[in-house]
Amino acid sequence: MKVINVLEEAAKRVHKNVKHLAGTKESGTDHGMGAGGDISRRIDIVAEKTVLDYLREINFECTVFGEECGIVKLSPNPKGFIIMDAIDGSTNAVRGLPFFCCSLAYTPEDKLSSVTDGVVMDLHNGDLYSASKGKGAYMNGKKIQVHKEKPIYFVVGVDISGISPDVLPQLAPILSASNHVRHFGAVALELAIFARGLVDVFVDLRKKLRITDVAAGYLIASEAGGYVVDENGMPLDSNLSYDKRISFIAAANEETLADVRKKLGLSPKI
Amino acid sequence: MKVINVLEEAAKRVHKNVKHLAGTKESGTDHGMGAGGDISRRIDIVAEKTVLDYLREINFECTVFGEECGIVKLSPNPKGFIIMDAIDGSTNAVRGLPFFCCSLAYTPEDKLSSVTDGVVMDLHNGDLYSASKGKGAYMNGKKIQVHKEKPIYFVVGVDISGISPDVLPQLAPILSASNHVRHFGAVALELAIFARGLVDVFVDLRKKLRITDVAAGYLIASEAGGYVVDENGMPLDSNLSYDKRISFIAAANEETLADVRKKLGLSPKI
Repeated sequence: MKVINVLEEAAKRVHKNVKHLAGTKESGTDHGMGAGGDISRRIDIVAEKTVLDYLREINFECTVFGEECGIVKLSPNPKGFIIMDAIDGSTNAVRGLPFFCCSLAYTPEDKLSSVTDGVVMDLHNGDLYSASKGKGAYMNGKKIQVHKEKPIYFVVGVDISGISPDVLPQLAPILSASNHVRHFGAVALELAIFARGLVDVFVDLRKKLRITDVAAGYLIASEAGGYVVDENGMPLDSNLSYDKRISFIAAANEETLADVRKKLGLSPKI
Repeated sequence: MKVINVLEEAAKRVHKNVKHLAGTKESGTDHGMGAGGDISRRIDIVAEKTVLDYLREINFECTVFGEECGIVKLSPNPKGFIIMDAIDGSTNAVRGLPFFCCSLAYTPEDKLSSVTDGVVMDLHNGDLYSASKGKGAYMNGKKIQVHKEKPIYFVVGVDISGISPDVLPQLAPILSASNHVRHFGAVALELAIFARGLVDVFVDLRKKLRITDVAAGYLIASEAGGYVVDENGMPLDSNLSYDKRISFIAAANEETLADVRKKLGLSPKI
């Protein structure tokens, strides 16, 4: 079984096991602080257990780097890592807002830039986004690509949750340039819909994201032809660490990326 | 037939007639500038025609105040007005983003404060929100109310599309106070989900909204127990005009409203 198929099957099982929970009081029960530093909700715990149970069932020998469960070795000599945010957008899920997902990525080495396979499952509607390095990105088995048509600033996604008042003014030129700013509240899925061409630009300069939020979405967005870089214009990278925080800019083409960087006061040339 | 039932039936017909269009190239065909000043898309035109055809079919003698079609008298001696944004969130609809709605309100007089009935239909999933003045707010026939539990800043909706760089800093204390900021891109539906308790606060200080965007959502949010005021802390009001632009703050309780106003640098007492 290919790694990508393992990730896809795990995500499908999460969808099956959590869809009845979304928007229920039960889904939000507090289970203490997870490894990533946020409160774990019941829906997070059910989703993570689903993935871990499945990986054990098929004897997938890896180390899981999970948003809630922390680092779990599934065998004495694990081969590679699964980077798991079993529910990205837990607050949306608990409140009943229809935008949350399961994000799973595989890397043979302990770093983001080595990710070879990524899956994002839209847990509201069951759409499955996936990519393997060098093989393009897919939604429900059909090839997807970023939005190549102009105008370049039509729909702009941003993450401004808890943004520092010092960082906000930097975004002003981007926000005022678009009549269609969006923030749905689950970055992995926001990268997936960017990859599919529903959003033209996505910016998160908060330095708050963890590797679990972006590992799968980054690969999917890149394989769909998107330009995704950190605040210094470099490819995203990080060891698997709960401390490392990430900012990024995603744009549907090189010209847009250069223009976004200019508007943000960053060097337009990268 | 009660007015609210007329609005509900019209919204259901819009849902039926546009659901196959969402996310298609056809839905976005340009039909020139609408009365409200935005480009009319094919999906807007189909939705408006559905409402107008239905009102004519049942001989509903009113004047329609439409986002795209302008002012349409449906009889020589119309009684009252239907305020129509047949598709709020057209860009989402055209792009395939799952958040757009039909907003219909009825007022016997030419002003927002006289609105007696309002309906918002979630055109993605078919949820129907409705309210008649003094009779509470409903979703799919079940009574709804705003989110009364604390914490008060948990999920905060904002509209920052094309926001002026001068206005943005005013929002900084609200954005930094919430780890769950959302902007889905269809204000009428954002007010409806606020009414249902999915979002705790909604702020739009851009002075860009038209009466067609808020007429139904305002009644639904108010009837669900929400506090909705303009930037001066007054109840929203306006004659039916395409020129009048509206800002508003919606909060789930009085204490939150006072606190939001303070954070925005507005007098907390109203």
